[in-house]
Amino acid sequence: MAPRRCRASGRSISLRRWTTSTSTAWGTGRSASGTWSQRYYGRSLPFGRDSFSVPQIGLLTVEQALADYAVMIRELKRQLAAARCPVIVFGGSYGGMLAAYMRLKYPNMVAGALAASAPVLSTAGLGDAAQFFRDVTADFEGVGSDCRDAVRGAFHQLEELSQQQDYSLIQSKLSLCAAPSSALDVQQLNGLLRNAFTLMAMLDYPYSTHFMGSLPAHPVKVACDTMRSGSDLLSSLRNTAGIVYNSSGLLPCFDLYSLYVQCADPTGCGLGPNSLAWDYQACTEIDLCYESNNVTDMFPPMTFTETDRQLYCARRWGVVPRPDWLKTQFWGDALSTASNIIFSNGDLDPWANGGVRQSLSSSLVAVNISGGAHHLDLRGSNDADPESVVSARKTEAELISRWVEAERSRLPSP
Amino acid sequence: MAPRRCRASGRSISLRRWTTSTSTAWGTGRSASGTWSQRYYGRSLPFGRDSFSVPQIGLLTVEQALADYAVMIRELKRQLAAARCPVIVFGGSYGGMLAAYMRLKYPNMVAGALAASAPVLSTAGLGDAAQFFRDVTADFEGVGSDCRDAVRGAFHQLEELSQQQDYSLIQSKLSLCAAPSSALDVQQLNGLLRNAFTLMAMLDYPYSTHFMGSLPAHPVKVACDTMRSGSDLLSSLRNTAGIVYNSSGLLPCFDLYSLYVQCADPTGCGLGPNSLAWDYQACTEIDLCYESNNVTDMFPPMTFTETDRQLYCARRWGVVPRPDWLKTQFWGDALSTASNIIFSNGDLDPWANGGVRQSLSSSLVAVNISGGAHHLDLRGSNDADPESVVSARKTEAELISRWVEAERSRLPSP
Repeated sequence: MAPRRCRASGRSISLRRWTTSTSTAWGTGRSASGTWSQRYYGRSLPFGRDSFSVPQIGLLTVEQALADYAVMIRELKRQLAAARCPVIVFGGSYGGMLAAYMRLKYPNMVAGALAASAPVLSTAGLGDAAQFFRDVTADFEGVGSDCRDAVRGAFHQLEELSQQQDYSLIQSKLSLCAAPSSALDVQQLNGLLRNAFTLMAMLDYPYSTHFMGSLPAHPVKVACDTMRSGSDLLSSLRNTAGIVYNSSGLLPCFDLYSLYVQCADPTGCGLGPNSLAWDYQACTEIDLCYESNNVTDMFPPMTFTETDRQLYCARRWGVVPRPDWLKTQFWGDALSTASNIIFSNGDLDPWANGGVRQSLSSSLVAVNISGGAHHLDLRGSNDADPESVVSARKTEAELISRWVEAERSRLPSP
Repeated sequence: MAPRRCRASGRSISLRRWTTSTSTAWGTGRSASGTWSQRYYGRSLPFGRDSFSVPQIGLLTVEQALADYAVMIRELKRQLAAARCPVIVFGGSYGGMLAAYMRLKYPNMVAGALAASAPVLSTAGLGDAAQFFRDVTADFEGVGSDCRDAVRGAFHQLEELSQQQDYSLIQSKLSLCAAPSSALDVQQLNGLLRNAFTLMAMLDYPYSTHFMGSLPAHPVKVACDTMRSGSDLLSSLRNTAGIVYNSSGLLPCFDLYSLYVQCADPTGCGLGPNSLAWDYQACTEIDLCYESNNVTDMFPPMTFTETDRQLYCARRWGVVPRPDWLKTQFWGDALSTASNIIFSNGDLDPWANGGVRQSLSSSLVAVNISGGAHHLDLRGSNDADPESVVSARKTEAELISRWVEAERSRLPSP
């Protein structure tokens, strides 16, 4: 096989780490098959159906995933006779964390990383447990403070009915398949409802998407319109949750325990096998102890402390979480010795403020996308794209192009 | 506890990785107890006496060792209220590799590394299998080409006697406790003898040492003097081996299988439990496929190919070596994105040319020590020290001092 002439062709081999393969953690179980996927996601199941058993699940670590990529890149370069082709890694969300980590730990293998919407700080325990749901709230507040107030008011009514144990009214108002029968059921309901707002904030794209379920364009605005209409707040809340859980309009009622599953990630683990993998990661290395408090956000107070996490993870997986590990292993905010990483974030994305928002050097570049939701920059172009994301993609392409050129001059001649 | 005021005191906490704790791999089983030691060395045995069984040995990896250091540094900084104290890592030989790796993988934890006599390239499979024993030979040649010729001549006589199967003459000339009875015994004898020259070259210090056994000052010169004297070459070879194996003069004969043990490291694994750990590492991550060929060196041809390694390691530990891994994981020669590492090497050290001999940048500095043996710079000062090592230590201190200052200005104020 003739060696690929990267310089001549102007092409580099990019190992795009499809965001779909991991962000299904939050989604509807959309399969990652057909894309390169991290071990234990999609079809990358090292022990087949037994992969999610203890101890087989134990080989699911960030470190092993990165090592897989390193070996895969080495092997692909060999098979493609592409030793001189620079590699750039791309990823969104957790995939963005992996992209950044690859550049931190394997700069010999990858010339640069685009880490889109990568909450590298908050998942390492750096930051504020209230940040996430505060920023979800801010999106709805951005449409109008009346919208935020309506949501808060609806949750307040729900809380009152719950205290009165008027479960049948809760059932009818919220179209639940079964009436709640305990405080635990109400907690589950609150989780399910909060998760709908989380998803709409994350996926507040300017066009309809089918990325994690089906959502209309500008779902936060649609949600606020829905909260403002309707005969009463609880019915509006039900209809708003329906934007996420009943986009087809075919669901006769909401089943509390099949539409939403509580896990070690209070922002939602999604459903299906990928959600198991994500739950395990949230129980070991990735710290997602976000809380709502009804003071800085519009949701009922729902705590998830490190102790809660410990108890849950011991019971579910027989593991003890390591809240300090990610910060040690992947440098936390001590990133100054790294290079060639773009940290892009959209200001509508509740994950954004868990990431790097300010450039740390000329090659550790924060790209902030006004009006952008979760890794909007990684999505295909769309006529409805705001100018900010068009400009962000241009900046990203220019930086990557520069890195590729520099890497080509570094790599040995054929 | 009051926080340590590093700036005021001018002190930094250095976690010195004692070279003794790992280089006993080649030595006489000197205990590393009382020093910080890598897992599976010295008293750091995670499963006690069972630590060297399969599968317990499986937790011995470079990655795990580095993670141990990272957690230990974090914890020490916490316990000592020393968050603002920069950490510099020191190591010699394999310990030097670990020091360099710490800076590559955890620059958030360590501000710099002194990697003394660290064969980071050859152990990653970069380089020439003939390099090591060629450089051992060069040391003896440096004393005089007649010395090299005498050693080669002695091995040649041994080979002739072996081909004639005159094992009793071999026994008497070389004072063996038992006569060899097979080609395998002769191979073992050759390994034992070659190892004596290896150790004298590595430890060719200008004063007597008790680091790996007891050696006189300038052992290579002593060896050459010994080779030149004596009634015949084989007796001289025996006396020369005695410098290493019979420094006390009390050994009545050489026992082939107790003084030297063949392993996955043809430069010698030493004796005792540490040698087991080193053998396992040489069977998994660390590639030590060095060979003598009697063309570029003075030893009998003794091959150790990747296939030999595979067969041995499968039999001994049930593992498959990963010859490409170290280069992938610890960047091989693609070190340009790293910073704040000193690669010091002495030109008498056969490990030197397996390491970094030329500076790669202003903060990836090669320090070459003329007349220096294996990590001479890490040893205490001695009146017999050559000027080169005095100067090297000064350079190292200046660089480290600069790194410490830079790190202090980076770390947050109290």
